[in-house]
Amino acid sequence: MTAIRHALSIKREDDFAQWYQEVIAAADMAEESGVRGCMVIKPWGYGIWERIQRLMDDRIKAAGVQNCYFPIFIPLSNFEREAAHVEGFAKEMAVVTHHRLISDGKGKLIPDPAAKLEEPLVVRPTSETIIGDAMARWIQSWRDLPLLTNQWANVVRWEMRTRMFLRTTEFLWQEGHTAHADATDARAETHRALEMYRSCAEEDLALPVIAGEKPENERFPGAVETWSIEAMMQDGKALQAGTSHYLGTNFATAAGIQYQDREGGQQFCHTTSWGVSTRMIGGVIMTHGDDDGLRVPPRIAPHQIVILPMLRETDEDAALLAYCEEVRVALSGGEALGERLRVLLDKRPGKAAAKRWDWVRKGAPLIIEVGPRDMAEGKLAVLRRDRLWNTANGKPAFAFTPREDFIAQAGALLEDIQQGLFDEARERRDANITRGVTSFDEVAAFFAEDRARPGWVEVEWSRPTGAALAGVEERLKPLKLTIRNVPRDGAPAAGACIFTGEPAIERILLARAY
Amino acid sequence: MTAIRHALSIKREDDFAQWYQEVIAAADMAEESGVRGCMVIKPWGYGIWERIQRLMDDRIKAAGVQNCYFPIFIPLSNFEREAAHVEGFAKEMAVVTHHRLISDGKGKLIPDPAAKLEEPLVVRPTSETIIGDAMARWIQSWRDLPLLTNQWANVVRWEMRTRMFLRTTEFLWQEGHTAHADATDARAETHRALEMYRSCAEEDLALPVIAGEKPENERFPGAVETWSIEAMMQDGKALQAGTSHYLGTNFATAAGIQYQDREGGQQFCHTTSWGVSTRMIGGVIMTHGDDDGLRVPPRIAPHQIVILPMLRETDEDAALLAYCEEVRVALSGGEALGERLRVLLDKRPGKAAAKRWDWVRKGAPLIIEVGPRDMAEGKLAVLRRDRLWNTANGKPAFAFTPREDFIAQAGALLEDIQQGLFDEARERRDANITRGVTSFDEVAAFFAEDRARPGWVEVEWSRPTGAALAGVEERLKPLKLTIRNVPRDGAPAAGACIFTGEPAIERILLARAY
Repeated sequence: MTAIRHALSIKREDDFAQWYQEVIAAADMAEESGVRGCMVIKPWGYGIWERIQRLMDDRIKAAGVQNCYFPIFIPLSNFEREAAHVEGFAKEMAVVTHHRLISDGKGKLIPDPAAKLEEPLVVRPTSETIIGDAMARWIQSWRDLPLLTNQWANVVRWEMRTRMFLRTTEFLWQEGHTAHADATDARAETHRALEMYRSCAEEDLALPVIAGEKPENERFPGAVETWSIEAMMQDGKALQAGTSHYLGTNFATAAGIQYQDREGGQQFCHTTSWGVSTRMIGGVIMTHGDDDGLRVPPRIAPHQIVILPMLRETDEDAALLAYCEEVRVALSGGEALGERLRVLLDKRPGKAAAKRWDWVRKGAPLIIEVGPRDMAEGKLAVLRRDRLWNTANGKPAFAFTPREDFIAQAGALLEDIQQGLFDEARERRDANITRGVTSFDEVAAFFAEDRARPGWVEVEWSRPTGAALAGVEERLKPLKLTIRNVPRDGAPAAGACIFTGEPAIERILLARAY
Repeated sequence: MTAIRHALSIKREDDFAQWYQEVIAAADMAEESGVRGCMVIKPWGYGIWERIQRLMDDRIKAAGVQNCYFPIFIPLSNFEREAAHVEGFAKEMAVVTHHRLISDGKGKLIPDPAAKLEEPLVVRPTSETIIGDAMARWIQSWRDLPLLTNQWANVVRWEMRTRMFLRTTEFLWQEGHTAHADATDARAETHRALEMYRSCAEEDLALPVIAGEKPENERFPGAVETWSIEAMMQDGKALQAGTSHYLGTNFATAAGIQYQDREGGQQFCHTTSWGVSTRMIGGVIMTHGDDDGLRVPPRIAPHQIVILPMLRETDEDAALLAYCEEVRVALSGGEALGERLRVLLDKRPGKAAAKRWDWVRKGAPLIIEVGPRDMAEGKLAVLRRDRLWNTANGKPAFAFTPREDFIAQAGALLEDIQQGLFDEARERRDANITRGVTSFDEVAAFFAEDRARPGWVEVEWSRPTGAALAGVEERLKPLKLTIRNVPRDGAPAAGACIFTGEPAIERILLARAY
């Protein structure tokens, strides 16, 4: 077995955080913008987001939810109405105070003191309060319910420590906001959105996730229930990849979202909100990336197959390019995962090997190299990004495949890659959830051993609230642990709460998290 | 002939501005948000925008332009670099000065004085300066050129007088930004984008437009050339529906966008930018709307065909709904304008007639009503939104068509409607451009007559610049006229400049404008 020379300089097992940054740079996905905490999302990163958007939007529309667009600015007074909500967000918002710049007379620009806003505007950190205003206008009677809206938008939360895709001052997301006649219907919508996120994460992003309810202390500010999907990264940490909130009548009361029921009485609506963001891309990187860069699941890959002609800057290039274009057209007529194949012919000048490593680092699922000899023989050199290396000789594991065979197989290959990435991630996740821990001391010992990647621990608890829950948080803090969620599909509790000793009522997942 | 009772209360000829507002409300497209100058775009308005986005994005990607995302916040100092640019925008920007709110101790929130930003941030009015920073990082050599980027984003310009879709504080748009090795290549891109806008406006939105160059005084701040597409509204005013700018090396010099040429020398790039916005929707309303509401061109209609079952809240409803669903499925398999048909079965409770008028006001291209008798006879009652009335009896002009015939014809009908809307608008536009006006006095007399809808006047001029052009502006101002553009495809000049008396070198369009 020959040593493999990986495409990245940093290996996951050596420094996961640095490796993450290197993948983003090496795959040319995003970069720091120079504006505090904001990133520039580059074409490959944005292309993945466009794919996620398209697939999620199809699911959102299929559920009868309608897209709208609401203002980016929210009057300060909106935040004063829902006490718990403002408490949760007040500390980290961008505040617009002026609407004009003027020259300071020394060649610099300053906010014009004469153009100070009477009421400052907040750049939305989330839109419950402004959409609540609209719902109060739109809803009169039970006939208007349920009201199902969604928007794709940018939001801003002033973060002190930022990390690309995972935590940035500005990020892109969708936020669903719905209003219902009663708690039953609103809770059903909360669960529909949660299940939509689970299926999109698992089927589209190949991210195995555990859907469940957040404990009281991790609820969205103002929510009655917060549910999440949690994914395990390769370093064993948890990533909250989407949330769905049942807001009860809290926001409806604050914004006056009322309806006349069938008996003519006035009722407050029960509302929900749910969102996923560009953070999911961070989850894709930390789940599917390897020491050669990113591996993009085919369903969200902007290009699923990249064809690289081995150009030599000779007269032969034209025939080779024409041949590759024929292959591209033939492949593009195929289907995988319910869609037409997305195939790129990379005509850029430059060595095919250099371009190959570009696409390896970016994680295109299938890379095809075609030289003049391959053309003559009617063959293609096919590289699967998920099985990159021939470990016997330490070289890329090209399969030389007759052109027609590959064209016939390409769709099935991509489906195999999609499933393989999911299975690999799920097996790793399942292998790294430790069950059967029955005391807090065991938890403490488990994490105190300072394992490199301890993963998650499942324990039973009695669902303490208030001060008792705060005590639990305090005990978890030194271990850097948080309660991720109460798995929706978890086994019933059978023993005692590891915190209180009382009979347990459910299982929870403890983990370090992003 | 019986009098027609139109669906709107205000007629175009009575009060065009009020009519415009009524269409937006009656078609349920958008509404004031309560946040100064910002609107809420409701599902039907946003659905039209999603269609425009999809069609334009396809054109953008086909040209090899790659989508990215850049920060919404731009440091103040970025605006100090390009003098003409800041001059043009400085007066109308939202300025973020604080990043945290605190309680004032009396139940109100205020910006935290301890969280004042050292350098204020501007909410982007446009992104030349921040994208210029990125281009300076991304471009090293001629091999990196051309660099072709685009983003779909929200932007903010603090407008004193706002009007929905046409001029709002926040609006949605795409902004293309490209960098090139030389002026020839950058100018070619400026024209490619202009032509893309023309074809999208005409083919997708059915808006006939005149593409041409803006005079010096109407240029984008910092541009060397600004080109536009101009559409004529039904009140005869012009609407600038898209712009494409050749920026020379102005922004490249300000941001340091340089490349090493083939000979090893350092050169500044030539850059372009181009954009269209939600303003286009205002153009669709004012071009295709009538006294019954909006008429949406089929290509940008979220639903092209709406099926309305005549439900009676009896047991027969189930069979009728099942039949309508069959029709929907059969229609959805058809194609028009190169895409699958978009067909909605409107199952909401309520009278079919009330729902019919909803969809008339919204402007769905084809409305199908199906009652139990139609079902029994295998017929559909088909209403073309573009030929709504039977003028003989003043009633909606339903055509009772055998189901299979309609299914076979639907695609062709939609294509006919698309073409018809365009032809109607083009004929009106062409009939309202007055040519052969050879003196300024004639122009003054023409517009002084206070015609209700004078349209546009084409005149010849000598392309004055600087102070002479400012003089032209001053003369046009009392007539409320502006120079729209120099039509790209205009006839050559043959006479004298109406302003200077010098030999004319080109033709220009004069108009009142939005």
